[in-house]
Amino acid sequence: MVKEDVGITVAKEDDFSEWYTQVVLKAKLADYAPVKGLIVLRPDGYSIWESLRSTFDKKFAKNGIRNGFLPILIPESLLGKEQKHFAGFNPEVFWVTHSGTNEIGDRLALRPTSETLAYTLYSKWIQSWRDLPLKINFWNTALRAEIKATKPFLRTSEFLWQEGHTVHSTEEEAESEVMKILEIYKNTVEEELAIPVTTGKKSEKEKFVGAVYTTTMESIMPDGKALQMGTSHFLGQNFSKPFEVKFADKDNVEHFAWQTSWGVSWRLIGAMIMVHGDNKGLVLPPKVAPIQVVIVPIYKNDEGKNIVSSKVEDIKNELELKEIRVHVDDREGLSPGYKFNDWELKGVPLRIEIGPKDIEKQSMIIAKRYNLEKSSLSFTEIEKIPTILNEIQIDMLKNAKKQSEINTINISNYDEFKSKIEKGGFFNAPWCGELQCEEKIKEETGADIRVIPFDCEDRNQKCIYCQSQSKIIPIFARGY
Amino acid sequence: MVKEDVGITVAKEDDFSEWYTQVVLKAKLADYAPVKGLIVLRPDGYSIWESLRSTFDKKFAKNGIRNGFLPILIPESLLGKEQKHFAGFNPEVFWVTHSGTNEIGDRLALRPTSETLAYTLYSKWIQSWRDLPLKINFWNTALRAEIKATKPFLRTSEFLWQEGHTVHSTEEEAESEVMKILEIYKNTVEEELAIPVTTGKKSEKEKFVGAVYTTTMESIMPDGKALQMGTSHFLGQNFSKPFEVKFADKDNVEHFAWQTSWGVSWRLIGAMIMVHGDNKGLVLPPKVAPIQVVIVPIYKNDEGKNIVSSKVEDIKNELELKEIRVHVDDREGLSPGYKFNDWELKGVPLRIEIGPKDIEKQSMIIAKRYNLEKSSLSFTEIEKIPTILNEIQIDMLKNAKKQSEINTINISNYDEFKSKIEKGGFFNAPWCGELQCEEKIKEETGADIRVIPFDCEDRNQKCIYCQSQSKIIPIFARGY
Repeated sequence: MVKEDVGITVAKEDDFSEWYTQVVLKAKLADYAPVKGLIVLRPDGYSIWESLRSTFDKKFAKNGIRNGFLPILIPESLLGKEQKHFAGFNPEVFWVTHSGTNEIGDRLALRPTSETLAYTLYSKWIQSWRDLPLKINFWNTALRAEIKATKPFLRTSEFLWQEGHTVHSTEEEAESEVMKILEIYKNTVEEELAIPVTTGKKSEKEKFVGAVYTTTMESIMPDGKALQMGTSHFLGQNFSKPFEVKFADKDNVEHFAWQTSWGVSWRLIGAMIMVHGDNKGLVLPPKVAPIQVVIVPIYKNDEGKNIVSSKVEDIKNELELKEIRVHVDDREGLSPGYKFNDWELKGVPLRIEIGPKDIEKQSMIIAKRYNLEKSSLSFTEIEKIPTILNEIQIDMLKNAKKQSEINTINISNYDEFKSKIEKGGFFNAPWCGELQCEEKIKEETGADIRVIPFDCEDRNQKCIYCQSQSKIIPIFARGY
Repeated sequence: MVKEDVGITVAKEDDFSEWYTQVVLKAKLADYAPVKGLIVLRPDGYSIWESLRSTFDKKFAKNGIRNGFLPILIPESLLGKEQKHFAGFNPEVFWVTHSGTNEIGDRLALRPTSETLAYTLYSKWIQSWRDLPLKINFWNTALRAEIKATKPFLRTSEFLWQEGHTVHSTEEEAESEVMKILEIYKNTVEEELAIPVTTGKKSEKEKFVGAVYTTTMESIMPDGKALQMGTSHFLGQNFSKPFEVKFADKDNVEHFAWQTSWGVSWRLIGAMIMVHGDNKGLVLPPKVAPIQVVIVPIYKNDEGKNIVSSKVEDIKNELELKEIRVHVDDREGLSPGYKFNDWELKGVPLRIEIGPKDIEKQSMIIAKRYNLEKSSLSFTEIEKIPTILNEIQIDMLKNAKKQSEINTINISNYDEFKSKIEKGGFFNAPWCGELQCEEKIKEETGADIRVIPFDCEDRNQKCIYCQSQSKIIPIFARGY
């Protein structure tokens, strides 16, 4: 029998960072690559990404967005065309200087993001109003050299993401697109990953430097830190002017177009691990789980095996007909206990146990991963399993919302703010709107304005820092 | 009304190369990127890739293969670990030497292929027979600097592909995997892209340098040149030894594993364009067409428009219920003739034309793209359209097979070979099996051994070059 130390050896509440890394590695979602800062996705990790991609693709398609492909290499000269935007990425860019033994004249950047490349092409592709809106999404990776320690899914020098780039004939249409995407992001993360998010705008200081404004969705992690889950930018004409993305309108007058860009990355998987995982390992929301139901047949001899196996096969087939992703763990030479631990570590949402005694009673044991509850289910109730999975999905979101609410605090006293920030959380604190206060707060507490929720205007409070009249109540937090 | 020169301006038979490039660009499949050697896929081009990916994914999954993700950067030290393999790629490698302003010690290669990276990881992941077989596929891009002129889909410095890497406990199982993959490749290309392929092995000279042997599928293009459509390699223990991909068997004895690797690229899209396209532009096989049926409503005034539009909407809905990808071209201000040309250029397999007169007759005109045939179809026969699309698909393969057979020649006289090779084609020519003859033929005629078909042994002929006893009858051709 295989005996290896497969379990998680630290508690989530004791050493969150080490717990996280162990879950990622031991649940076989990802591993470190030989180059510092890079990771590899194993099939169970990539499968979650594929599931998200498929959901986003359906929603994007309904919204008239199609996918395309952009190469990874961008000439230095092009990257620098929108100066502010470039300055932001400069220290993080990987540079290709040689092909074979030949030196390359205009160095090539590995794409940190593709605005400059996409808009060079859009400028060629768009001539008239007939070509608008142009809405293309790209599933690829972006590269930004990380100097800090690698954290799988959260801090890596190459990351999987999607970047959408749309062009519109009017400002209104572009702004409406920004919001539609943010809404798609929000409902996908909440419905698929069971993670609640708060949407709103970034402050001027925190926005994407190339954008007129950035909308964002933020979530609070169990360690009290905020995680940016995705951003949708209104670019205005900031890029269309330098890149000459122009169109002739119906009246044949030429105009600069209005643009948006937006992205989510595999960071979402990191958030899912942090929010739902426990001391036994990963806990997967059923919708994105590569295996939704694992069946562990239990028997002591060949006779028992024969009786159990045929019933297990029936149940498997019945669940597959209902489009449930089901796996039978019929590995020889491993105890049921070992198998239970293994599938709990891997976060499979529902486990079914069936032994000869269960067959006598015409029922099986079902064990829910997220709350570790076991109960009995009659063979005649198998059809309930899709509903049970849905209930798990909904309950996981509900629990995460509760946790998020507990960690969200209304606060107006700066001393209290400073002391409470140590434990983490989202802080709704009144702000005068001045950069200076924002910077001072960051300097003194490490907390950023993570998100300015829509409709958070409030002029009846005092700025938590300078005590002058407040304008809005943004969410402050320390972030990843 | 828009008047632009959208059509193809050269004939396929007159200037094949220019015709090809025009089809790619004008059908809006792809465009050139700012960096020499790189291209961009527009949605209609990428959609074909997505369709192929989805078909392959289903077949891979049935065969127990799952997808993963590998980063694009490989340290120089690792790439050189299997020396023969490395030497083959060395002149084509893009090197990253800096991140930001920092010089990187061990230079980083942009992945020309991922054997070295994958097997470094496999070596960690595989301990015992329980971990085998390990079968992972990676959808990504590979980078190999091209010095010759860019040819979209056929010769680019970055290309979309999949690379599969499997590990087995026995030689037999690995060899059987190589053949299973080749079979998946063959039936996918024939069934989805309607392109006939010949499968077999590469000669020692032409095989992947890291492989024990390489199996390949080759097709003949309309210009008489051969195109390698995909390869599946038996790696034996060539990599498992240097990379220590070992497993403890049931008896606890350690063995080196047996491996395979295999890939197809977007070159398949290039082949599809070449094989099926005509002087009006692209011709898409229905199975991979982003739009399978385009409906062009025809009317002269608002009254006509009202009558036609509601019928068009009905037909569209009916086809969508049958899971046909259908598009209605209701663009204002463009003539039906302009629209017909536009959709012919884009290769949509079936066009439906409906005007007020058709509605009177309760029928519509259907125009097949691949043979440009028009006929009338009664509104009561709409349910036949999926069958019609299937027939088109089958007929396109039949036509391509006929063309391929015409261009395949049995030949035993070298002078005849030398003169006929100028016009291109597949040449079944007896060969003694000696490298020297293979090299001489290449030198004197430009023709390679493209593929050694399975069961092509024949010892009753004379080698076309040296006249000694033949061993086999491989296919010689000039290639892309």
